[in-house]
Amino acid sequence: MSNSKDIDALIDMMAKLPGLGPRSARRAVLHMIKKRSLLFIPLAETMHTVAATARECLNCGNIGTSDICDICNSEKRATGELCVVEDVADLWAMERSGVFKGRYHVLGGTLSALDSIGPDELRIPQLMNRVAAENITEVILALNATIDGQTTAHYIADQLPNVEVTSLAQGVPIGGELDYLDDGTITAALKARKSF
Amino acid sequence: MSNSKDIDALIDMMAKLPGLGPRSARRAVLHMIKKRSLLFIPLAETMHTVAATARECLNCGNIGTSDICDICNSEKRATGELCVVEDVADLWAMERSGVFKGRYHVLGGTLSALDSIGPDELRIPQLMNRVAAENITEVILALNATIDGQTTAHYIADQLPNVEVTSLAQGVPIGGELDYLDDGTITAALKARKSF
Repeated sequence: MSNSKDIDALIDMMAKLPGLGPRSARRAVLHMIKKRSLLFIPLAETMHTVAATARECLNCGNIGTSDICDICNSEKRATGELCVVEDVADLWAMERSGVFKGRYHVLGGTLSALDSIGPDELRIPQLMNRVAAENITEVILALNATIDGQTTAHYIADQLPNVEVTSLAQGVPIGGELDYLDDGTITAALKARKSF
Repeated sequence: MSNSKDIDALIDMMAKLPGLGPRSARRAVLHMIKKRSLLFIPLAETMHTVAATARECLNCGNIGTSDICDICNSEKRATGELCVVEDVADLWAMERSGVFKGRYHVLGGTLSALDSIGPDELRIPQLMNRVAAENITEVILALNATIDGQTTAHYIADQLPNVEVTSLAQGVPIGGELDYLDDGTITAALKARKSF
């Protein structure tokens, strides 16, 4: 369509990325070609490096550029707290907040009877091993507040009788307006109310 | 943030593409890493190739992977018709329709007194040379229906007294509903009405 096989192939592949379609892929490719030395060449090189080196951490399931990720390698993060998340995107969200100083464990999904995903399809056996091996004193379940997420949280809590298991608080989000919140959130926030 | 320098750099650069922001860049990068052999490695390689080879056609301003693009190189396209467009994206849009069989000339923008863009900042002198050198019988002005686009069209038409100059028809788009069209389009469509 642009009359160059390579450019067309690049547009087709960019269009497969989430959030991009054929139209925005064309715009992105044109933009890159126009900003060749400032954007395109550095982007192509970094992409080459990451494509060659990115892998899952063998310990926690985070994505990094070595077999064991920087968080698992850092002695500072051996606080005895282990934060369990569904996906790497959730781990990155927690890291952006910068408030958690311990290590993570990425499940890679949630238990789901419908999709026949049991504990062995997730990284749950490895979680049990880590709790025993890494002197974990508290497991923080930071799973999504969905049915599947909460089912998984209950399952994991049942499997860990000898360690403190906590979960993220539920309530009104910062900046949230009551008028726009759903009934479930208001109910949860009222039940978990605290003295001012 | 993801605790790998290269992955963070890749996300930062992807976030600079039009249509992507930090959030969608993170999603895109995670998606690529998860679809490594199917998507990420081929995409990285194609990007590397295109970054090294993509350039503007010296003749028409189209983007390709050689000094003279495939359209200018093709003898089949020497029909004597020359389609003038503002941007490579417009050329690609014309090519997708597949209806134009001649060659193109990309101006690289429009005349604009405000931004002090005159004929020499655009590819207008080259256009005059091509009309003389390539036995052009008709120049089709496919410029955007904006003030700047139409000003540029009038300027070019004035410079080409010895060749037929046409422009795209204006009217109701295919599938368009009158109720949703602006007054200007309806006026143009009515003025240019034709016998049924």
